[in-house]
Amino acid sequence: MYFRQKKVEELLEQCQIFKNLNAQEMQEALQTFHYQVKKYQKGDILVHAQEVVVQQLILLQGDVKSEMTSFDGKLIKIADLKSPRILAPGFLFGNHSHYPISLTASNSCEVMAINKENFLSALQKNAKLQLNFLNLISNQTQFLTRKLNFLNFKTIKGKIAHYLLNSQKRQQSNPITMDQSQTKLADLFGVTRPSLSRAWNDMNHSGIINSQGNQIQIIDLKALRAFLG
Amino acid sequence: MYFRQKKVEELLEQCQIFKNLNAQEMQEALQTFHYQVKKYQKGDILVHAQEVVVQQLILLQGDVKSEMTSFDGKLIKIADLKSPRILAPGFLFGNHSHYPISLTASNSCEVMAINKENFLSALQKNAKLQLNFLNLISNQTQFLTRKLNFLNFKTIKGKIAHYLLNSQKRQQSNPITMDQSQTKLADLFGVTRPSLSRAWNDMNHSGIINSQGNQIQIIDLKALRAFLG
Repeated sequence: MYFRQKKVEELLEQCQIFKNLNAQEMQEALQTFHYQVKKYQKGDILVHAQEVVVQQLILLQGDVKSEMTSFDGKLIKIADLKSPRILAPGFLFGNHSHYPISLTASNSCEVMAINKENFLSALQKNAKLQLNFLNLISNQTQFLTRKLNFLNFKTIKGKIAHYLLNSQKRQQSNPITMDQSQTKLADLFGVTRPSLSRAWNDMNHSGIINSQGNQIQIIDLKALRAFLG
Repeated sequence: MYFRQKKVEELLEQCQIFKNLNAQEMQEALQTFHYQVKKYQKGDILVHAQEVVVQQLILLQGDVKSEMTSFDGKLIKIADLKSPRILAPGFLFGNHSHYPISLTASNSCEVMAINKENFLSALQKNAKLQLNFLNLISNQTQFLTRKLNFLNFKTIKGKIAHYLLNSQKRQQSNPITMDQSQTKLADLFGVTRPSLSRAWNDMNHSGIINSQGNQIQIIDLKALRAFLG
């Protein structure tokens, strides 16, 4: 039992929500949580889309996939989620706290489940935990706001141009320092990683930009702006 | 000074962030805030787009408009915001805490400004304040998630069909109870209120749905599904 508890703590240390908590604070948080650990087998449904969120779930082990059901009953995969990580933190509070997607186990999973009230108490008791959670859900708002902006640009090159021009405006420098990976950027744009790479390389070879690692120099500003449409 | 303080409290009572706080809790929160009140005249810029958010702003009096600047320098109005209300709560925390828009005074405004650290301390001291803020920023995440879903449907009738079918699935009943006004729905769909009304009335007159106040009966399910495209 002692070893089991140790293991849970080691897994949780890798989650952003527990960032900067020392061993004692971690133990206090776990005690306040009064958590249960649920086990799932491959194909088991953890939550259904539209279900009301009453617990904060933390995926301790295994992988889950998030899926949407279209109105003709087709399942559309949205994302693969790897442990350890918090699940749908932006949906525990608020007036529309329903899961927007279903979550299905891709293999054997262990999930920590914490009642909303206990989770809230733990946030109230520990300022670091509170700040971490506020950062997590604010990141979601910020990601979605930026994603919505990118939807105005129909082509991938248009999205890249918008991203680079915005980064330049914020950083006030050329070259621009990329603050996220191409995988995260593809996610933000709502396109696949290979399509993004193709468009990116194309703009590089045409001499519009010059990428060196995470440093991107805008060479032909006029051509870049032209992609905004 | 006493009257001034009373007035601020009366204005704040109308903000969701102070919901359920009693007079003493409100005073304690205000003391922890160490707030400043800033005054703006019509046309003054409160914040610029891309500026880093370091204070939580609460609009006490007057109206502001949020605007985006396109890359050719045009200002595009996004929304009119009326006092009293909290401004951009989802952007105080997180890794990309830059204002996504600029805020300009539409008339004489008074704005309460609270430093991030003081705001965080007040949330830590009062559980109701913490819950209210978590609800506010979670609502933003949930609103944006739903808004992104609606963007898949090109026509307004497609968006209405998606909304009604989803509501029916969640409420497991027909008629469906509308949980938001047509103004909020138009905002969610990213369309104007008159366009929404027109499409809505059209579906009513064609006998696809039957609206009676906030009760909507789906009459012709097949025709409704056909709008999903």
